[in-house]
Amino acid sequence: MKLYDGGRAPNPRRVTVFLAEKGIEVEKVPVDMGQMEHKSAEVTGLNPLQTLPVLVLDDGTVITESVAICRYFEELHPEPVLMGTDARDKAIVEMWNRRMELNFLGPVAAAFRHTHPAMKEWEVPQLAEWGEVNRPKALAFLKLLDLELAGREFIAGDRYTIADITGMIAFDFMKPARIERPDQLANVMRWYQSVAARPSAAK
Amino acid sequence: MKLYDGGRAPNPRRVTVFLAEKGIEVEKVPVDMGQMEHKSAEVTGLNPLQTLPVLVLDDGTVITESVAICRYFEELHPEPVLMGTDARDKAIVEMWNRRMELNFLGPVAAAFRHTHPAMKEWEVPQLAEWGEVNRPKALAFLKLLDLELAGREFIAGDRYTIADITGMIAFDFMKPARIERPDQLANVMRWYQSVAARPSAAK
Repeated sequence: MKLYDGGRAPNPRRVTVFLAEKGIEVEKVPVDMGQMEHKSAEVTGLNPLQTLPVLVLDDGTVITESVAICRYFEELHPEPVLMGTDARDKAIVEMWNRRMELNFLGPVAAAFRHTHPAMKEWEVPQLAEWGEVNRPKALAFLKLLDLELAGREFIAGDRYTIADITGMIAFDFMKPARIERPDQLANVMRWYQSVAARPSAAK
Repeated sequence: MKLYDGGRAPNPRRVTVFLAEKGIEVEKVPVDMGQMEHKSAEVTGLNPLQTLPVLVLDDGTVITESVAICRYFEELHPEPVLMGTDARDKAIVEMWNRRMELNFLGPVAAAFRHTHPAMKEWEVPQLAEWGEVNRPKALAFLKLLDLELAGREFIAGDRYTIADITGMIAFDFMKPARIERPDQLANVMRWYQSVAARPSAAK
């Protein structure tokens, strides 16, 4: 098994942190996205969408999409549980992971890709106005999240899950996206400091 | 259990088709999105993000996000399997469902929301340029999908799955989004005609 990895870019990092939480080691093939290596013939042959990460199983099966890769490992190595226990809990974790993607990581990534000068070659056409629209969307969601986190420790309940990984990585990605950290949201900040202090976050 | 339903809008319809494929009946609370009822105090109280559908369990647990609702039913009623069998198959279905969302339903919805006059109140600010950028993105993905579908019957393999539901609904949504149907993509058209002929598609 081999994991074509894009380093600290948000989606590759989601899988890296997930694997660190599970204590799973996978052989990695580093791909330098700064050098556009994710558009190489080798990566394109595995994933015509040219996104990372890409997991190649020993039988040659190719799995792309961070959460699909996480699900593969969750099914094979359930402990520690990161994607829910029973039907109700799995649904709650999926809901929160998607809420973090659609309302937080997505807007932060859009702000980054559509306003950062380094992204001109990546996001064609780069529409600064679309990037700008997304900054307040991310912050509006964090205000709602702050109310939620008044009543519990982690995003999807009393246990750390994949939704915390998505959220932490989106939060870190606010910096290159030039979105100010919402220091006034005490519950969000307490949650972020807690998840960012885990050993997996150093990955 | 009650399902707050938004009718034929894409996300509510994903759950409706999924339940029809499973043969599951759930009590529905119709919400008229044309009348902005998804912004009512009742719906907002259940889901501050004001999106539909919303599933309320008998114990009061609220599940939002179409795929999270689908996962709840998949876990409780595995047959017919719509989200994968073993670790590898679940990962493949998740990969394809996300590819259909990120590269097809997402761009089609962006084109609709940012260019359709009826969406002016919904998508603030409406950025026509962003809508226009998304039309060719959807079509470029369908070209890749056409190559994939040369070798198999359904999106994620030889079995109908949730990825076919997402794809069919995105395909139908091209019409209001004013994206021309790609009649030249023979494999995509064969796949679409097959999934659109299932009884669940009439929902």
